[in-house]
Amino acid sequence: MADTPAKGLADVVAASTALSDIDGQAGRLSYRGYDIHDLAGTASFEEVAYLLQRGTPPSRAELDDYRAELGAGRAPGEMVLASLDGIAARQAPMEALRSLVSLSSADDPDRATNEPGANLRKAARLTARQPALVAAYHAARTGSEQAAPDPSLSLAGNFLLQMTGKRPGDRAAEIFDTCLVLHADHTMNASTFAARVCAATLSDMHSAVVAAIATLKGPLHGGANEQVMRGLEEIRTATGRGPGDSVTDAVDRAVRERLGRGEKIMGFGHRVYKTEDPRATHLRQMSGELAQASGDDTYYRMSRRMEACVFAEKGLYPNVDFYAATVYHYLGIPTDLFTPVFSVSRMAGWTAHIIEQHADNRLIRPDSAYIGDRDRAWVPLGQR
Amino acid sequence: MADTPAKGLADVVAASTALSDIDGQAGRLSYRGYDIHDLAGTASFEEVAYLLQRGTPPSRAELDDYRAELGAGRAPGEMVLASLDGIAARQAPMEALRSLVSLSSADDPDRATNEPGANLRKAARLTARQPALVAAYHAARTGSEQAAPDPSLSLAGNFLLQMTGKRPGDRAAEIFDTCLVLHADHTMNASTFAARVCAATLSDMHSAVVAAIATLKGPLHGGANEQVMRGLEEIRTATGRGPGDSVTDAVDRAVRERLGRGEKIMGFGHRVYKTEDPRATHLRQMSGELAQASGDDTYYRMSRRMEACVFAEKGLYPNVDFYAATVYHYLGIPTDLFTPVFSVSRMAGWTAHIIEQHADNRLIRPDSAYIGDRDRAWVPLGQR
Repeated sequence: MADTPAKGLADVVAASTALSDIDGQAGRLSYRGYDIHDLAGTASFEEVAYLLQRGTPPSRAELDDYRAELGAGRAPGEMVLASLDGIAARQAPMEALRSLVSLSSADDPDRATNEPGANLRKAARLTARQPALVAAYHAARTGSEQAAPDPSLSLAGNFLLQMTGKRPGDRAAEIFDTCLVLHADHTMNASTFAARVCAATLSDMHSAVVAAIATLKGPLHGGANEQVMRGLEEIRTATGRGPGDSVTDAVDRAVRERLGRGEKIMGFGHRVYKTEDPRATHLRQMSGELAQASGDDTYYRMSRRMEACVFAEKGLYPNVDFYAATVYHYLGIPTDLFTPVFSVSRMAGWTAHIIEQHADNRLIRPDSAYIGDRDRAWVPLGQR
Repeated sequence: MADTPAKGLADVVAASTALSDIDGQAGRLSYRGYDIHDLAGTASFEEVAYLLQRGTPPSRAELDDYRAELGAGRAPGEMVLASLDGIAARQAPMEALRSLVSLSSADDPDRATNEPGANLRKAARLTARQPALVAAYHAARTGSEQAAPDPSLSLAGNFLLQMTGKRPGDRAAEIFDTCLVLHADHTMNASTFAARVCAATLSDMHSAVVAAIATLKGPLHGGANEQVMRGLEEIRTATGRGPGDSVTDAVDRAVRERLGRGEKIMGFGHRVYKTEDPRATHLRQMSGELAQASGDDTYYRMSRRMEACVFAEKGLYPNVDFYAATVYHYLGIPTDLFTPVFSVSRMAGWTAHIIEQHADNRLIRPDSAYIGDRDRAWVPLGQR
């Protein structure tokens, strides 16, 4: 038994994958060998989900079939609908998704098998259903009627329709589609790893996705985009302390105060990227575009200022969460649903990793190093 | 980035723990330094759960308080009760537990914090509630009235009462209590590791336990005790092919046929133990005792024969699952609830590992080795 703990398993290779690759020095991310810069704005989320789950880009006919499969799998089933109102009233968004996806296996005809064809069908259903669950949860908790799905829209456009109740503009739907593409997979992050640890016992896809959602719920992994937005809101509220105090002054002050207290600035730095996260490049540009279109670019200007300030003070680059926050905000997504929306995208990667794990499986069972007392004599209760 | 994959993370130390330790060569297992042989039959499950979760054996007064805390936390809340019938009708046992535990966070006043005191309270509630959920699920799916809990009984005795509808004999309750002690923790197995990966994002205890249940559901981890029993049932049914064909003949035949086809015999061998699993020693003895008391020792005799036969053919020892199967069977536990019953016990270890992870946390984020194609040129859909 080895006994030097690799804390956090940093730099330990836990699995081989053909799904995504990161070059942290060069700031490159690719899905199945396609550079994310070539996919962003060119490939739809449906094409990327197909690529990740099935290995090759779809032909026009294959994409049409896949879209039809997604459309057929979208509606939450009986089991979810029966529990939705209670869950929406009493569980926070990520708790609710954990429960809803766990319940939804009851509505899946392939739930009891990990056979490759069944796994592909379940992957499509889970990919289609996740945005439906997020939108249904939001409608239930706000007591509003959910807009009917529009089969002519993309998964991204339909989600915005069902989430906000308004038909999105073409450009908003395109931008959200690109967000989904950018977040679809990212090698062995914590939630994906949890999904693979679960799948490696030959547990089923729903179980492994539930483990991933449970893991994404943690603020060290999934909550960062939401915390970025809450930070910006707080700073904006604190503006105007004196005459002429602008939001950029408030940003400078907040960054310096936080760094002075030794705190981290959410949305900056990454364990893997040593330069700009390639996803941030696209998200920054889209945030600026949406800010302009919205007529109030305050949060975008604040973000740019914060980026400059954090780089000057600490040499840190914005990560994927930093500009995702304002993009989601400008798209009308409630701040406490940012992490659930991220899960809509990452479902493509999670399911693909589960398929890959099942296809060439070995139980993932590491060792632990024992650091406690040894050889203690048990004194029965009556003699203690 | 390292690039030699440690497949299955075998021999990679993923975490330090003061909870349990295995010496695979000597066949020793200890909890917080106490040898399992000293605990079995001497310590109650409540004492062991306390020891694991809180670090020291309880005094009489501490144990009384802990028992009171367990009693107060036992009853499933509103959220679980509202969904129970639907889940019992449409989800298999481990799916159901995954859903029920996920829903039950809504009923926990400490759900939103990982603060140490809150974690201890949640650990007690989850430990108390798991047997209640298993028994409630079984009552709901069989449409039977659940027996009221009896506060004078141990957790083990009360579970047998609520599961079978009959007040257990003292010795049956003691034996089941010892089973719970034997299964309470086992270093970095797959479900415990999944719980720690989840908790390491600072996700909450319910989420991490849901990830563990999802992982235990896999047949490479949790299903073995059930498969052992189904194997014995099958062999018993196949007895009497010719005149004088006994169950022991049928066992010999089945073992040789399976090994001849290159199949594994469930319940034998372990990645860690190179000699007899110390838990099997106690389970064998208890299986024999219960068999005698039941008046039909067929399954026990078959198990002894199978043990001898597999050792002769392959040199493999029975693992923890082999005799647990017949012990659970003689205690009146339905075969498809063997893994849920295992989770009743392992809840003590899972919650203790989550507490330990939160107390000295680092995100668990391994690397992956990319083995796919590189530098592929993306051809937009219209040009494909």
